[in-house]
Order: sequence, then structure tokens, then C-alpha cells
Amino acid sequence: MAESNALPIVVLAEQFARLPGIGMKTAQRLAYYVTSMKQEDVEAFSEALLNAKSKVRCCSVCQNLTDKEICPICDDVKRDRTVICVVEGPKDVTAIERTGEYKGMYHVLHGLISPIDGITPDKLRIKQLLARIQSDTGISEVIMATNPTVEGDATAMYISRLLKPVGIKVTRLAFGLPVGGILEYADEITLFKAIENRNEI
Amino acid sequence: MAESNALPIVVLAEQFARLPGIGMKTAQRLAYYVTSMKQEDVEAFSEALLNAKSKVRCCSVCQNLTDKEICPICDDVKRDRTVICVVEGPKDVTAIERTGEYKGMYHVLHGLISPIDGITPDKLRIKQLLARIQSDTGISEVIMATNPTVEGDATAMYISRLLKPVGIKVTRLAFGLPVGGILEYADEITLFKAIENRNEI
Repeated sequence: MAESNALPIVVLAEQFARLPGIGMKTAQRLAYYVTSMKQEDVEAFSEALLNAKSKVRCCSVCQNLTDKEICPICDDVKRDRTVICVVEGPKDVTAIERTGEYKGMYHVLHGLISPIDGITPDKLRIKQLLARIQSDTGISEVIMATNPTVEGDATAMYISRLLKPVGIKVTRLAFGLPVGGILEYADEITLFKAIENRNEI
Repeated sequence: MAESNALPIVVLAEQFARLPGIGMKTAQRLAYYVTSMKQEDVEAFSEALLNAKSKVRCCSVCQNLTDKEICPICDDVKRDRTVICVVEGPKDVTAIERTGEYKGMYHVLHGLISPIDGITPDKLRIKQLLARIQSDTGISEVIMATNPTVEGDATAMYISRLLKPVGIKVTRLAFGLPVGGILEYADEITLFKAIENRNEI
């Protein structure tokens, strides 16, 4: 590595450019911006990076990222412990929490089944989900909230087959037109799903 | 600050969101990405941030950002010391260096004159430019390479008036159609400049 000889600002730009979605031009702009930040702000940023890596671990119940043994959602006695919403990643938990409507529990798989990318079911947190359901008889429904993609559908199908023998209700998020969307811009599959899943009004 | 109670990942997302051009969604995505990075990569990133702030200072000659007393360009004996290209910021030096055509020196103003924003000439590195020109009789030309904006033009005009009595040739970057640009999409002022500055072929 010739990095030790490179300018600190170039080294920082290269670090920014390694992040997803940040190109070299943006990375340079950010690196220059850092030189104009206050010393204590840069220190806070630097420490936040280290903390996010070192202090973050998976909740022993739902596998979501947290800095405690059990995450705040699993620890919240006011939440409905009879429903588990299964999602691909921590970002999906944040997205669903943002709706403010869901009051149940979560289970984070940390990926979706994708044999092409070498992601087999044993690489995901499916074991932990099964163990959770087997040890807690109060769970009555598992909502499969994986993405409406090939991998998301396959994962939902795989898990629902595993859970059938246990006798638990497995549901899937509804597919249809996005609210505020325009019918003529909807793709064929979405529109077909919207017709298929039509509701009486 | 309630930050000490916040999740490390939320704290990091907030840090990313303080950077220019990074919204909260992107910041969250980046924060989650950091948790998936290797420990040593996060440490390198964290250190690069601190280094960029603490080790970077202004070159005592051209005022460009560097980690040494004199920057590599000012220190390069092969460069043409008779020409100084005056730019707004370090990014402009990088942009001009990228062309590979310019072999002279630089002077970085660290801003443009903008009385509305409280940026008066004394806040810029204009003193240092004058001192440089007065102490070095070998300088024959100063190229004003500030942006073609109101502030850029005003700064170029201000400096050129300061330098006139010294008897140094002051030039300004050419304005015209961007290479590869389409004539009908050029704005009126650019097109007018392109006609005004037309060259015989």
C-alpha cells in the first residue's frame, strides 16, 4: 500500500469512495468538507464509526442490530408478542417502524436465499426463527415481509413450508398498487396482483 | 445531547447526514454498511478522518491544502514558476491538474468575494498572493481561474485591479461553448461569449 505516502485528504477520499453509492467526485467533495469541519465534530464522527462497528451486535431474540443483549423492540413489554414479522435486514425494521402501525415483534434474516450468490438457508438466521417459535408457544402468526423479488418470494416460501408442520399461520405482505401511484405507470405484474387481490368496498 | 443514549448506528447515521449532499436515507444506508465492513477497514476510515483534519494544513506558498510545509506542486522544480493560476478552492486545483496541460503554479483563495455572505477581500488569501508576487520578480502572468459567476467575476476583477500597478499581465479563463456541448442547449450568455470570443480557423 502506497497510502502512507498519499495526502491525508486523498486517503480520506478513497475511504469515502469505498462506501456504496459514493463515487470518486462525491468522495473528494466530502473529504474537503471534513477539513472544514470543527475538530470536535470530526472526532465525534470518527468515534461514531468505531462505535457503530464495535458496539453493534445482533439482538439475541430477533437478530436485529443493537448495542444491547436484547434490542429495545424485543424488550418492550407493550408490543404484541403473538406476531413475528420476518424481514431481510435491519433497514426493513426501520421502514416498518416508521409506519407506526405495526406493534408486533420482528425477526431479521440478514439476507435472502439466493443460491446463485451462495446464500443458502443455513447462512440466514432461519434456525434462530425456528428455535424462537418452538420455544414460545404464544406465537400465532408469522408475517413474511421480504421484498417482492425472486429471492424474497423464495425465502418467504421456504420459511412458510418449514413453519407449516408447526401449525402456525404464515402470511405475506399484500402486493398491489402503491398508494398515490398512477395506474398506467404500474408494471404488468403489480397491476395483475392488484386485480387479483382486489377488495370489496 | 441525548446522543449517548442513542444506538451507535443511529449516531453514525446522524454523522453521515451532516455531510453535504447526504440525506437521512443515504446516511442510514451508509451506517448499516459500516457495520458490515471489516474491523480494520472501519479503523482505517476512522483514522483517515482524523488525519484529514489534523494533518492537513495550507501550503505556505500557494495556500493549497497539503500535509507538508510546502505542497508537492510548489515543491516541484519542473513546474513553470512564471505563471500563477488563481483559483477559488483546492478542488479547482485538482480539476485543472486533471487536464494535465497546465504546468505553472497555483494560488488558492479559499473563497470568493461575496459581501452578502460577509466574505470581504481580507477574508481570502489575497494578501498572500500580493506578497508572493512582490517578493518574486520572476512572475510574469496571473491567470484568474475563478468560476464564471458574479462572485468569481468580481473576485477576478478585484485582484486584477490590485495587480495592474505591479505591472503583471492578468488573464482570465476563456468562456465559450463547452466541448461536446450542443449549441441549441447553450444559455444565451454562454452563446454570446462564444460569439464574442470567436477565433479565426
